[in-house]
Amino acid sequence: MRIANLAGRLVILRDETAIDVEGASDHRFSADPQSIYERWEEFTDWAPTADASTTVRYDPRQLRAPVPRPAQVFAVGLNYADHARENGFTAPAEPSVFTKFRTSLTGPYATVALPGDTVDWEAELVVVIGRCAHRVPAEKAWSHVAGLTVGQDLSERTRQLIGSPAQFSIGKFFPGFAPTGPELVTPDELTDPDALEIGCSVNGEVVQSGSTSRLIFPVSVLIERLSAVLPLLPGDLLFTGTPSGVGHARDPQRYLTAGDVLETWVGGVGRLRNAFAAGQPAVGAAR
Amino acid sequence: MRIANLAGRLVILRDETAIDVEGASDHRFSADPQSIYERWEEFTDWAPTADASTTVRYDPRQLRAPVPRPAQVFAVGLNYADHARENGFTAPAEPSVFTKFRTSLTGPYATVALPGDTVDWEAELVVVIGRCAHRVPAEKAWSHVAGLTVGQDLSERTRQLIGSPAQFSIGKFFPGFAPTGPELVTPDELTDPDALEIGCSVNGEVVQSGSTSRLIFPVSVLIERLSAVLPLLPGDLLFTGTPSGVGHARDPQRYLTAGDVLETWVGGVGRLRNAFAAGQPAVGAAR
Repeated sequence: MRIANLAGRLVILRDETAIDVEGASDHRFSADPQSIYERWEEFTDWAPTADASTTVRYDPRQLRAPVPRPAQVFAVGLNYADHARENGFTAPAEPSVFTKFRTSLTGPYATVALPGDTVDWEAELVVVIGRCAHRVPAEKAWSHVAGLTVGQDLSERTRQLIGSPAQFSIGKFFPGFAPTGPELVTPDELTDPDALEIGCSVNGEVVQSGSTSRLIFPVSVLIERLSAVLPLLPGDLLFTGTPSGVGHARDPQRYLTAGDVLETWVGGVGRLRNAFAAGQPAVGAAR
Repeated sequence: MRIANLAGRLVILRDETAIDVEGASDHRFSADPQSIYERWEEFTDWAPTADASTTVRYDPRQLRAPVPRPAQVFAVGLNYADHARENGFTAPAEPSVFTKFRTSLTGPYATVALPGDTVDWEAELVVVIGRCAHRVPAEKAWSHVAGLTVGQDLSERTRQLIGSPAQFSIGKFFPGFAPTGPELVTPDELTDPDALEIGCSVNGEVVQSGSTSRLIFPVSVLIERLSAVLPLLPGDLLFTGTPSGVGHARDPQRYLTAGDVLETWVGGVGRLRNAFAAGQPAVGAAR
């Protein structure tokens, strides 16, 4: 199944049509794309039977973040060995966990304002939790996943690397710095959800290209290790890390500038297309 | 004004009584202690006129986290020079920002389960945002604050310090690792909200003792620097950092064990009293 946030309303995507969940004649669910994860199992039981006659016009430009108000957002650093190496680190012994804040989330085709001249890309596979996960072993972890989506962990490197010890985080918190989407794809749609092509391009030039099969801590292990510490809640997001090829590690270094177009993909899951503009990001404007 | 979360319901504390906000004859606000921050200005206009005849029994043991479901939780590391020094760091040039997750929040008198044998204390002043703050200069920052409360940034040091670079975060995410309360106190209740005694004791022995006047980045500057990056939303929490005296930096090192009682205070704001127990924390049990 593929679902999306179409102008703030939850839709089920089926072939080329979008079924408005609240508009369906036999609907039992709110239009709010966030609230569906609280009733994920019930929703996935109902969705295949949803009345396909109540379709709405599907304009991709109206797509927003598929999970707009997660209670918790987890992000994992240095989760591909080649990316850890290009940053001068060895592979971590345990997942290195930080956060993206809710106000950074934006849609799959949003234009993002550049708050500085060292904004870098980080293509990521993003996991959406569908069932509370607390102390879940790796072999059961996928059953707690609602689905997958594509994300960017945009990072302003100057802000990020100020201070000793350097912090992962503050340069990653600007509005619009977490584009996600275009859809949520359930794992059963994928031949092997642990081996997905991942990458991004700037103005058509491929700058990152890898496979999620190279994750040091794959999705199931991340859920095991994180859920050993705290409960992952329905509708939580998990940014799983980025492969090598970020601009900061290039020689010469390369960053995003106004007018650039960044395309980010995860095979079978989807593709983001974000343009960049000069100037201050407005609150919520990029949603 | 002092408000609190009494068994899940918002109350106004006046002398020795608690006024149930939803129960007041002229009420206009929900009982949900989280939702009040969305209408903070309206609430503070109304609260002094609230009908004091509709009081409820005030049993402090029923107090829960005054802000139970913040959209964003900010935590600042190394924000007192003496604590930065005891950890072997110089004072940071910019606030070092990480997060506590929502599932770590618990009440002011909750018993906290110890997930390991290196759990440490960090007494903190916690700021609650009352009005959206985005690009707010320091001199206007306090007008965006709803109030102050007391917090602990409990930290499992073994988990926290795994990996290179060491991460601030994962050892701070266990359930119950963010006791807060007992009340939210508005800044006008305090003679000088920038100079508050802060400290904590273990089994009556004072282990941290300082003043928020020693913050490297005081509340107004933290709001300026953070809001320069992203919007702080009504009901967001800001853990401002801890002074020296943590157990990890002592010689010999000292950690919390089952049966210990940790009292944490901020002068004029309140006092937490948390006991510790062996065993796995249950989800939400400590609320």
